[in-house]
Amino acid sequence: MSIFKDRIEAVRAMMRSKGWDAVIVTGNDPHNSEYSAARWHQVAWLSGYTGEGDLVITEDRAGLWTDTRYFIQASQQLPAAGVELHKTRVPGQVLIPEWLAGHFADCDEVRVAVDGLCMTVSSVEDIQKTVGEKIRFVNAPDMLEVLWTDRPEIPQTPIITLGPEQVGWSREQKVRWMRKWLADKGYDAILLTALDEIAWMLNVRGQDVAYNPVVMSYLLVTQDNVLWFARKGEIPDDDGETEDSFHELLADGVNIQEYSDVEAALSNLVDGNYIKALFVDPATLNFSLFSILNSRYVIMGTSPVGLRKSVKNEVEIAGMREAHLEDGVAMERFLHWLQTSVEAGDAVNEYEASRKLHEFRSEIEGFRGESFETISAYGSNAALPHYVTPEEGSAEIYAEGLYLCDSGGQYLFGTTDITRTVPLGPCSQLEKEDYTLVLKGHIALAKAVFPKGTAGCQLDVLAREPLWSAKRNFGHGTGHGVGFYLNVHEGPQDIRQNFNRQALIPGMITSDEPGIYREGKFGIRHENLILCVDAGENDFGHWLRFETLTLCHFDTSILVKDLLDRSEIDWLNAYNEHVYRTLSPRLTPSVASWLRQKTLPI
Amino acid sequence: MSIFKDRIEAVRAMMRSKGWDAVIVTGNDPHNSEYSAARWHQVAWLSGYTGEGDLVITEDRAGLWTDTRYFIQASQQLPAAGVELHKTRVPGQVLIPEWLAGHFADCDEVRVAVDGLCMTVSSVEDIQKTVGEKIRFVNAPDMLEVLWTDRPEIPQTPIITLGPEQVGWSREQKVRWMRKWLADKGYDAILLTALDEIAWMLNVRGQDVAYNPVVMSYLLVTQDNVLWFARKGEIPDDDGETEDSFHELLADGVNIQEYSDVEAALSNLVDGNYIKALFVDPATLNFSLFSILNSRYVIMGTSPVGLRKSVKNEVEIAGMREAHLEDGVAMERFLHWLQTSVEAGDAVNEYEASRKLHEFRSEIEGFRGESFETISAYGSNAALPHYVTPEEGSAEIYAEGLYLCDSGGQYLFGTTDITRTVPLGPCSQLEKEDYTLVLKGHIALAKAVFPKGTAGCQLDVLAREPLWSAKRNFGHGTGHGVGFYLNVHEGPQDIRQNFNRQALIPGMITSDEPGIYREGKFGIRHENLILCVDAGENDFGHWLRFETLTLCHFDTSILVKDLLDRSEIDWLNAYNEHVYRTLSPRLTPSVASWLRQKTLPI
Repeated sequence: MSIFKDRIEAVRAMMRSKGWDAVIVTGNDPHNSEYSAARWHQVAWLSGYTGEGDLVITEDRAGLWTDTRYFIQASQQLPAAGVELHKTRVPGQVLIPEWLAGHFADCDEVRVAVDGLCMTVSSVEDIQKTVGEKIRFVNAPDMLEVLWTDRPEIPQTPIITLGPEQVGWSREQKVRWMRKWLADKGYDAILLTALDEIAWMLNVRGQDVAYNPVVMSYLLVTQDNVLWFARKGEIPDDDGETEDSFHELLADGVNIQEYSDVEAALSNLVDGNYIKALFVDPATLNFSLFSILNSRYVIMGTSPVGLRKSVKNEVEIAGMREAHLEDGVAMERFLHWLQTSVEAGDAVNEYEASRKLHEFRSEIEGFRGESFETISAYGSNAALPHYVTPEEGSAEIYAEGLYLCDSGGQYLFGTTDITRTVPLGPCSQLEKEDYTLVLKGHIALAKAVFPKGTAGCQLDVLAREPLWSAKRNFGHGTGHGVGFYLNVHEGPQDIRQNFNRQALIPGMITSDEPGIYREGKFGIRHENLILCVDAGENDFGHWLRFETLTLCHFDTSILVKDLLDRSEIDWLNAYNEHVYRTLSPRLTPSVASWLRQKTLPI
Repeated sequence: MSIFKDRIEAVRAMMRSKGWDAVIVTGNDPHNSEYSAARWHQVAWLSGYTGEGDLVITEDRAGLWTDTRYFIQASQQLPAAGVELHKTRVPGQVLIPEWLAGHFADCDEVRVAVDGLCMTVSSVEDIQKTVGEKIRFVNAPDMLEVLWTDRPEIPQTPIITLGPEQVGWSREQKVRWMRKWLADKGYDAILLTALDEIAWMLNVRGQDVAYNPVVMSYLLVTQDNVLWFARKGEIPDDDGETEDSFHELLADGVNIQEYSDVEAALSNLVDGNYIKALFVDPATLNFSLFSILNSRYVIMGTSPVGLRKSVKNEVEIAGMREAHLEDGVAMERFLHWLQTSVEAGDAVNEYEASRKLHEFRSEIEGFRGESFETISAYGSNAALPHYVTPEEGSAEIYAEGLYLCDSGGQYLFGTTDITRTVPLGPCSQLEKEDYTLVLKGHIALAKAVFPKGTAGCQLDVLAREPLWSAKRNFGHGTGHGVGFYLNVHEGPQDIRQNFNRQALIPGMITSDEPGIYREGKFGIRHENLILCVDAGENDFGHWLRFETLTLCHFDTSILVKDLLDRSEIDWLNAYNEHVYRTLSPRLTPSVASWLRQKTLPI
């Protein structure tokens, strides 16, 4: 019997002793972050499955729910634990709420234990709505603690603060804005639970979560107090920066508390009638914390910080431009190195390539790490849009076919996210056609002009129709919001088929990343970040457009020119020329002259 | 004092005697039809205003709510009645529910009388939701009857039946389908209230409503009964067709009842426990009829007939093709006549032109009338997308600038809707550019390929982006559904910016009609009907596309060719050639040779 089967049986023993009918375990942290620290890899600890997904255990069944990205991985890792795979985002899917409703159809009452720290209020409500009143949720925070004896601690990393010269708005301005919002709405306080919203509000950054420069914490803002629940233990502080940052925050009136004190502090404030109208966001507030609040005093809604944060100010935009200039230099150095190495017959594998790119980025002053795990994928590996490049045994890269690299950097002055797919030698006609069609889609979105009020989902088809016309498509969104030295994936806007009503607003940054993926053959994606900007007014209304931030040439050598129309060729030539002129002064003569050749007009 | 002020005062006297705080009057018929018969022109009778809109009367205020299309007309007609104009579909609009909430903010209880025959359940619920529990609706059907002594009767026109050779599905098949749906859902009965849904179910057509070939009636379908409440009095029956039709319906088990008996019959069935689960659609069920139903036994939702009806079967599609062939001949004869008349210097005005087009259509066997009021608009008149061509004093048409004609025919075998904008002589550069850009938008949608499951709102931008790129736009939808010898506007699908989740399905017919309107100058619209068809499957999924049904050339003489790309030129040349080859055998030699010149490739 595997160690994972033992662990699941141990959970069942606990269920029997507590009288629970089912247990739901997720891999989320208490803030519903995109990436969670090792402490919350509970699904992996229980089942051995290391991808995304949620686990449900009953007396006689154990199932994992995950989407297309993880089907192969899950079907390899789950059998040892005796866990069944439930596929989501497929036709006829049965999600956890529906599955529970079916499984317990004949029961009058069902007791479902959840680790309330790892489920949001929204996700619990979804289940309640579907299964109905007969479901009784039992909040069992840290329920695995008794079984998982060597469980990692809550992360506690050094923090830094950013000034208005870096982010535009001082934390006083932000708190003032927040208090005005509270006053306008008639609320006493807001509890921020999304880590990037807290980092934005306080102009602090940390490293508690991989790739996301945030601090695991809660933030309560009232008219006369700012309570930051952030201390989890000893804070590493080699150069005294954290200490300075704490002093600065204290001087600005931020009351720094223990992370674990948030429940008690909130209870006191609400029960003591100091707060009679507390605003919370159920999309990131965890069920455990929600459970201790008196629902009479709680107002649920979408936090106003997300939208405010997504609209970058002039200082942030200037920083993002600088980040893309520096990042573009690293990318061009990397692509030059890759091409010359591969053509020289040097042995290079995918993982080594990703380390080389990291090396180039590391030379940039203000570089703080990758903005997500680099996807360095050669040949058929690139057909998996979310390919994870293995450290050991990754594929060798040769002087033929296509290589795809999706990567980004976190800088003190911004965040980048770029994908380039480059030919390293002879390519098939299908590779050339797909490469050209994806670029057509990318360009169509990049040069779109649209009226104020337009939502991303109303533009999405522009990036797809060039592919659709040839009956090709891609299964992911076209664009996601990007933070300023914050999460590389942020809302509320996006550019995808889903009906997201959020209009695009000048100052918002999104990606533009159509692709084509052919299983067992190759994968192509062309990604730049684009900034929404004002394009003036006329009789027909107020107009917006995009400005491309990313600076790195698109390879033209395998384009099927007949598939491009004049305006697309003009856009491409102008972009490549702009890249050359902007970056070449910062490149060595040999890289600059290589880039000159790469960017000649077609 | 005007007659309208007198009438409004008479309503106020009634309000005082009944204890009503407000009265809402609409121009809708009891089925929420797009066009209503004279009997329901209650807003016009009360206020003198003849456009669309709803009237609210209180002790001290009277207001009319209408949208952009009617602002000019309303501001001319309303002052004489002392009625204020409330603009809808504008930023900061205050709709009737919000206005009532504000007006009666200080009252504890508000009694609002509505003619429940002329308001849907949905519209009453909207008001209830906004104003809250303090509002009490008083259902006062036909409340104006006592004042409006010469009020027209409920229309009663001849009816005809259509056989399966004309519509594909026999009424037995349709009733069987309906009964299966009821059984699957566990309902006892469905009450159909939308007139086009009833006409579709019974394969009957009438002329009770202008342009819509429907019979004013209600239809109740149960597992063992089909009750059609349709008789309003003596039915005109010159050629015995109505009598034959009634016999056919009776033979098919349709129980024909008095229109006015619907309330009593429904009460009996529901109160007598014969029906314990009655399905109704609140979007077309009137509030008066709803009020007599015991809500315990009523299930509200979207009628399944709308979607079923929108997906045309092979017989209907063949009929629609035939209709477009015949209609295309009439259109080409008309455009040829118009051009030669105008060039010869003959005096032709907009109204005469529309009559001439009617004449050509009337020569077609099976022609049953226009599918909506022809918009025949010259020069700046075409800048109003919903221009009404006056019978008296319409504009003279000269051999210069643009003429727009939006029209359609009802035929026994289908319905058409076509807009052509044609140059009649010298045009400005702006006219030429706009003409070309609108055609680019039209073509982009017409040649779209898209995956199964795509909704119209996800394609809408294709028709707009060529205009948006030049910072131009239009303020109406790009496409509406079209019935089969039924309403020219039907749902549930459409192609517009609004987030309508209904996917396009093979067999659905919609219009493709982008435009540009320049106040005081000119208006351009290019409209064809397009049929959604299957385009096969491959590794990327199941594909759909459009097939253009409309057959009438697009004038190429003023195109700015530099604005068109190769694929657009190819589409246009192929379309014009197809029009010529298909229609020319049915045209006189002189019209055919004129059309040959018009359709030469560019």
